[in-house]
Amino acid sequence: MSDLLERLRGVVGAAHLLVDGDLGTWEVDWRKRWRGRALAVARPGSTAEVAQVVRLCAEHGTAIVPQGGNTGLVGGSVPDDSGRQLVLSLARLDRVRGLDAANMTLTLEAGCVLQRAQQAAADAGLLLALSLGAEGSCTIGGNLATNAGGTQVLRYGNAREQCLGLEVVTAAGEVWDGLTGLRKDNTGYDLRDLMIGSEGTLGIITAATMKLHPLPAAQLTALAACSDLSGCVALLELARQQLGASLTGFEVMGAPALALVAKHFPQLPRPLPDAAWTVLLECADAHSEVQARAAVEALLQSALERGHIGDAVLAESGAQSRALWHVRESIPLAQSLEGPNIKHDIALPVSAIAGFVARTDAALQAAFPGSRVINFGHLGDGNLHYNLQAAPGLQAQAFLDEHEASVNRIVYDAVVACNGSISAEHGIGALKRDELLERKSPVALAMMKAIKRALDPHGTLNPGRVLPG
Amino acid sequence: MSDLLERLRGVVGAAHLLVDGDLGTWEVDWRKRWRGRALAVARPGSTAEVAQVVRLCAEHGTAIVPQGGNTGLVGGSVPDDSGRQLVLSLARLDRVRGLDAANMTLTLEAGCVLQRAQQAAADAGLLLALSLGAEGSCTIGGNLATNAGGTQVLRYGNAREQCLGLEVVTAAGEVWDGLTGLRKDNTGYDLRDLMIGSEGTLGIITAATMKLHPLPAAQLTALAACSDLSGCVALLELARQQLGASLTGFEVMGAPALALVAKHFPQLPRPLPDAAWTVLLECADAHSEVQARAAVEALLQSALERGHIGDAVLAESGAQSRALWHVRESIPLAQSLEGPNIKHDIALPVSAIAGFVARTDAALQAAFPGSRVINFGHLGDGNLHYNLQAAPGLQAQAFLDEHEASVNRIVYDAVVACNGSISAEHGIGALKRDELLERKSPVALAMMKAIKRALDPHGTLNPGRVLPG
Repeated sequence: MSDLLERLRGVVGAAHLLVDGDLGTWEVDWRKRWRGRALAVARPGSTAEVAQVVRLCAEHGTAIVPQGGNTGLVGGSVPDDSGRQLVLSLARLDRVRGLDAANMTLTLEAGCVLQRAQQAAADAGLLLALSLGAEGSCTIGGNLATNAGGTQVLRYGNAREQCLGLEVVTAAGEVWDGLTGLRKDNTGYDLRDLMIGSEGTLGIITAATMKLHPLPAAQLTALAACSDLSGCVALLELARQQLGASLTGFEVMGAPALALVAKHFPQLPRPLPDAAWTVLLECADAHSEVQARAAVEALLQSALERGHIGDAVLAESGAQSRALWHVRESIPLAQSLEGPNIKHDIALPVSAIAGFVARTDAALQAAFPGSRVINFGHLGDGNLHYNLQAAPGLQAQAFLDEHEASVNRIVYDAVVACNGSISAEHGIGALKRDELLERKSPVALAMMKAIKRALDPHGTLNPGRVLPG
Repeated sequence: MSDLLERLRGVVGAAHLLVDGDLGTWEVDWRKRWRGRALAVARPGSTAEVAQVVRLCAEHGTAIVPQGGNTGLVGGSVPDDSGRQLVLSLARLDRVRGLDAANMTLTLEAGCVLQRAQQAAADAGLLLALSLGAEGSCTIGGNLATNAGGTQVLRYGNAREQCLGLEVVTAAGEVWDGLTGLRKDNTGYDLRDLMIGSEGTLGIITAATMKLHPLPAAQLTALAACSDLSGCVALLELARQQLGASLTGFEVMGAPALALVAKHFPQLPRPLPDAAWTVLLECADAHSEVQARAAVEALLQSALERGHIGDAVLAESGAQSRALWHVRESIPLAQSLEGPNIKHDIALPVSAIAGFVARTDAALQAAFPGSRVINFGHLGDGNLHYNLQAAPGLQAQAFLDEHEASVNRIVYDAVVACNGSISAEHGIGALKRDELLERKSPVALAMMKAIKRALDPHGTLNPGRVLPG
């Protein structure tokens, strides 16, 4: 091993091969659910160095765990506890390689923090339309490796749809330069989309060319109160018809989720406090704020007349709009402050959501009386964060230890019965690997395993994540 | 062989296993460049029958050529001349399995003709946003197998971006049911996008779930005259800024292309006859025709003021709009009537197009004086059909036979120098296979071959297409 470390040091430099001292930053995940022990942390400074590191590890049969901002929620970016896996941090590959305004593309390295990438686009008067809670620390490479979602998927798609080209280091340590800025390219198999979402198990993304969009002239945020989830779905359908592509966000928040925010962040505004469900919708307009405002007002008016919603407010300024989003984004943090909870990141056909929630809420209440479903998410994409908090008074951690598997069974059985997904945007990582093995179609699993063997025959890339190692 | 045919007959029924008589419909491609000889044509009536046919062929080591509407342009859907390949026609799998209006999805079988699928969506007041010249006879399965493009990619993406889920028969004759209608699903590798665009070499698509969109309230078509290609690109940039997502089409037509239309279809309108370049742009609006018209008029006005365009017309009715599109769509037919020509389907970064065309036009003129570049295509996607017609007076077929390889070399060298694609939307098939081998990154080719071996280890699915058999 010391031979490998010596050679790695020769590649990345002594300052960038971390072996001693506190490696906690790289060994523990964001939720602090996964604590591993790394052989070392290598921080290469270029694609060529990444390739050399991978080749050396391949020679030594040493497993590699690629890591970006380490903000994942499924334990995909931290080492196991064997002390034999190398963490390969992409953090130093953080250059913006170029912005092509006429082609509306941005080429940048994997370690670029998402917010910096958004700013680079904005500086050129353009929009990088990927936005999520962790954007201040997550990186483009991680966003693509996990096919991140976020709050604008409804209009712009997941990270996959935002990406035109990739540069990837293969398991053999070769560099594939697929950094094209083309909207159309039918020259062979779709390696780009295969790499995206493969969580570092098929190759290591070192750079990407991302699509940019025109900055909208105006952006408006509204809240609407619904007495049931069917009302939210009806509002969504109406919003799609009336706003078309101007509808850029459609979030839903259940009353218990907003109650937690009110409890832990009493200083935040509480618009429409009595609603069973609150919709946050966002409208962007290419032309003018006046036009956007008229369109949203007309939408809310027709939704009121049809009885889909009971009340609504429209933010009067950018500051008000940000305040409404801040409430939405505070839900996960309020949940953490309330104590450990069982998280789900599920997707369903929009048409199945109201029925799913009614049935599953009831099944969970029957099995765990007093437990609280903290339900919120991206209704426009059919994506709910359907989380369970133990009944007040119970020891939350003890509840988790005892019941997590049973809770998951109830929720995931119901998801699968609706032809839904047990991981909409967070990925599989280590957390959901066994669940995937149990629930994914055996034909699909067999294809996945065959592809893994084909592209990583020695199984050194992030082993044990997505598929068994 | 007669044993295999007997057993195939048992699966699909005698009426649907064609062995005698004229199989020309299935053995010759649309351009009549590829004429093969099939062992037989099997026309299964269900996914289960497709799977049985594939299993029987796997047992016998018989190669399968899947075929949809047989409208491809690269020889991917007709058998070779060995008389040993089975054509598997998906034409009888033509059911619409279901439309979910609230989820905005349409599930249908591979053999559905695109126009019928569009109609099924329109009947529900929704839009299937895939549209191309061959829509009256091409099928959804073929559209997905080749990742078809078309005239609305700018706004809605290629066939890939329109598809949420697939049902696929694997090389081993198993059925993968991946027919989800989910906008987000991060449960493992992206098998869907790997199958899409693989031209039947990794699996046989038997059904798909497609995204639908709201029908726009209004659709407007305009023509604009530009004196050079840079003006067209500047207009595109302005149109994106001012129209945002309402810009649904942006086509460009060079004067020689429109001259051919005028020659062979003198009855068609000739708006803006003196322009070196004519742009056809389309704008869809969710709200109203009045709003769309105002937006397009404002756009054309600012483009005139900035000198990007010299003149413009805006269609006053749906009939006028269709007439303008009809001119655009008549270019390929006018080319055929003019005689054999050398077709290219290239993509470039939009920012590189004007320079590419100037340099490559000059290089072709120098090498083949008097030859005519018939240049038109989807400028909004950076996709040009950059075709060459022999100089008037030359024997077109003789010119092709003698010079096609040299012409391709000039064009493709220039494309690759701009980081472009030698097949934007038509695919590789048999026609561009050797070109791909020569020009694709060796690292990417090695990954493609590994994937082919992994998913079709005996090489029975459409062998010799995309990759060597």
